[in-house]
Amino acid sequence: MTRPDCADVAAALLAPPDGGFRLADADPGARPFFADKSDAAASLKDDAKAIDRLQNALYAEREQALLVVLQGIDTAGKGGVIRTVFNDTGPRGVRVAPFGKPTDLELAHDYLWRVHQVVPPKGFIGVFDRSHYEDVLVVKVRNLAPADAVERRYDQINAFERHLSENGVTVLKFFLHISRDEQAKRLRARLENPDKHWKFNPGDIEERKLWDAYMEAYETALQRCSTPWAPWRVTPSDSKTRRNALIARVVRGTLENMSPRYPSPGWSPDDYVID
Amino acid sequence: MTRPDCADVAAALLAPPDGGFRLADADPGARPFFADKSDAAASLKDDAKAIDRLQNALYAEREQALLVVLQGIDTAGKGGVIRTVFNDTGPRGVRVAPFGKPTDLELAHDYLWRVHQVVPPKGFIGVFDRSHYEDVLVVKVRNLAPADAVERRYDQINAFERHLSENGVTVLKFFLHISRDEQAKRLRARLENPDKHWKFNPGDIEERKLWDAYMEAYETALQRCSTPWAPWRVTPSDSKTRRNALIARVVRGTLENMSPRYPSPGWSPDDYVID
Repeated sequence: MTRPDCADVAAALLAPPDGGFRLADADPGARPFFADKSDAAASLKDDAKAIDRLQNALYAEREQALLVVLQGIDTAGKGGVIRTVFNDTGPRGVRVAPFGKPTDLELAHDYLWRVHQVVPPKGFIGVFDRSHYEDVLVVKVRNLAPADAVERRYDQINAFERHLSENGVTVLKFFLHISRDEQAKRLRARLENPDKHWKFNPGDIEERKLWDAYMEAYETALQRCSTPWAPWRVTPSDSKTRRNALIARVVRGTLENMSPRYPSPGWSPDDYVID
Repeated sequence: MTRPDCADVAAALLAPPDGGFRLADADPGARPFFADKSDAAASLKDDAKAIDRLQNALYAEREQALLVVLQGIDTAGKGGVIRTVFNDTGPRGVRVAPFGKPTDLELAHDYLWRVHQVVPPKGFIGVFDRSHYEDVLVVKVRNLAPADAVERRYDQINAFERHLSENGVTVLKFFLHISRDEQAKRLRARLENPDKHWKFNPGDIEERKLWDAYMEAYETALQRCSTPWAPWRVTPSDSKTRRNALIARVVRGTLENMSPRYPSPGWSPDDYVID
């Protein structure tokens, strides 16, 4: 198995924090690092196990948390990433927060209010299935808030993520980048396969018509919110297995860099007799 | 592979709702149903996959939820059950709620306040890692509330669980039953294995000294709170694989009885062209 360095993968996917990211330069069909699909699958499997071990140490240490933000257009594969990268760690160590249409109560607060509530506690991995970025994506594309309010959000989001990173929460953000053609294939599969009908939402077709506006909004978010403390990674996602394997490499490398330590006990085994 | 009926396992583990349960009649070392360990492991593996499939239907349907309550003395294996029975379903479909010592805010409310907040939403499986039963277990044994207040809680808990079951939440409760000797073995393993030191809490030894008081409190809870709408299952848990396999059988059977249905779409595939 070829196994690229976690750091090399993280660097290759990075949207530069200087604001220079251009979506046109990122190929959603790229197949970097892994020789073939089975190579990617083997790497993924191994990394998923390592992530489980590392989260165990994170939990024992209870000093820091990891927040993984997943964003992508419909069918980009957020669910597939969660399942393949995080199922080995499991629901006791990973907390998934899905962000749907805000409720009335949520709308009565600022847009980060509901987000802050579900930031993972120390010891845990949190995964955002969509996130506060919807507030500069769908909200911008569909004009759900005044343009000047949306404009201020990029800096607000950067400040919020900086706050998290200064308080023990490492923030990793992945844009699952698929092509317009690949989305067509996946939507058609939902239509053609009765087992996938429940996943198909006629509204997805309306969203698809706004493809260009969404891509423009993504590009802006990736330009303005890829920061040294919370960088964006642009993950070529037309190939599912490679997408999962790349993300797993970055997550594993990040956890290794966080180097969670098992605490030394304040006691010696000889202090105790169990009878 | 021998495969006992889910219903037979559920019936065998049942603490009778007539209040007649006696802990002395339940053998934590019992090895019912599975011929051997590999038989239990195969059944478990298959059931974990089925539970994943069933949760998917539950999510598509969005009409009902399953709440699994896990209780047991230290080392009884709540974490092991979560990992083996629910990791295949994963953190997107399973929400684990751990109940530790209540915070000041939680103590400023009635004891079911924090519990109600984390009842799983429709479409999800919730797992309680400890639960409101601590309010008639540790609270009773350590006199953390007035005896007459604790005495009223059994009926209050029954009313609360009835409310849930009448509102789309199926409640399954498992007591992970281990022997005093088995706990000694597991605590010693934590002392002897440096990798497990972080799991050892000197307080566990203090709790162990109260073994008889805890068992009496469990017996009372299992007598008074095993109801037709939220029955207790007493799971022999000295053998880990068998414990996991028995619980998986009951969870699977319960989900099958809930028979979640994929909704029929309000559209025909021919209505749409993806271009």
